[in-house]
Amino acid sequence: MASKEKIIYFNTNNKHKFEEVRRLFQESNVKYEVKQLNMKPIEIQAENLKDVAVFKLKSIKQDIEGSVLVEDAGFFVDKPLNGFPGVYSSYVMKTIGNEGILKLIDDFEATQAHFTAVIAFYYKPLDDIFIFEGNVHGKVSPIKKGNQGFGFDPIFLPNECPDKTFAQLSTKEKNQISHRGRALKKLIEFLKNN
Amino acid sequence: MASKEKIIYFNTNNKHKFEEVRRLFQESNVKYEVKQLNMKPIEIQAENLKDVAVFKLKSIKQDIEGSVLVEDAGFFVDKPLNGFPGVYSSYVMKTIGNEGILKLIDDFEATQAHFTAVIAFYYKPLDDIFIFEGNVHGKVSPIKKGNQGFGFDPIFLPNECPDKTFAQLSTKEKNQISHRGRALKKLIEFLKNN
Repeated sequence: MASKEKIIYFNTNNKHKFEEVRRLFQESNVKYEVKQLNMKPIEIQAENLKDVAVFKLKSIKQDIEGSVLVEDAGFFVDKPLNGFPGVYSSYVMKTIGNEGILKLIDDFEATQAHFTAVIAFYYKPLDDIFIFEGNVHGKVSPIKKGNQGFGFDPIFLPNECPDKTFAQLSTKEKNQISHRGRALKKLIEFLKNN
Repeated sequence: MASKEKIIYFNTNNKHKFEEVRRLFQESNVKYEVKQLNMKPIEIQAENLKDVAVFKLKSIKQDIEGSVLVEDAGFFVDKPLNGFPGVYSSYVMKTIGNEGILKLIDDFEATQAHFTAVIAFYYKPLDDIFIFEGNVHGKVSPIKKGNQGFGFDPIFLPNECPDKTFAQLSTKEKNQISHRGRALKKLIEFLKNN
């Protein structure tokens, strides 16, 4: 069992995200263990994920003894939807879902989409907040495919493997190219150096 | 010119909303004059407008000498869109717009939609916050109609006059049945009694 100094808390109510993060920590040989917390942070309406994540982190960090991370991610259909659903991805998923996004698009070949993940991390030893961002670009699939992942994964075709949606990749495969995987790798790099 | 005690500040960057409110105050014979303020409040992500409005008000009221109101409104397509766009109406308007909403719907006859407005009001003489809510129910129009109003007005057919969209009504006609008009009438009633 990890000593208290070797624990990083990840505050999220999304068990899929937690599982992705836990796996990546495990595989990375970093000396920290990640544990899930389920506090209710304040989420602001803002047009960039960084502001949302930092506010969220600040709203809970005083109640936690130790280092803590929060993550905010969004699916942005840059063409033709002007970035929709973006920062409000989880609300859009709950209301109109993947089917709604598909209905809004006529020409799938011309789509440009990306996922972004922003990690805001309070690192107790340095008593400071650090930001790590990851992106993955691709297209929107005209049909939903795959059972892995969650959210908009079944309709996103990453440029790195344009014949498969995110939901057709294993957690391990997805972590290698995903927005969250990329942001986490930066965090893990940071932890190895500090 | 009104004395300072007879002024109510309305914090909004939406000139259409301000104009609707100013008109209704003018017509109501209430002894207050409404003035526009343009401070940047904190807007939280929440699934009900009341929480958004109260947080917004609290985030600015300490910087204002006097009574102040903020308003938050949303357009909810209850059927078939599970309330979308709801509390995120202004973001959805900026990204996919009315055209996006229309694309998401197949059977317009079966739609159920409503607008809700929530006013959060800090009343200086009583040093307390009061909430006033107004609703208007109707259907979604299969085509955009009218040049009045703003936002989702061109695609909303209120039950009170189901052949016209909100954007085909004058400000005066709209104020009589609109969500914002109804919330404001409650506020004005309150001001007359307190």
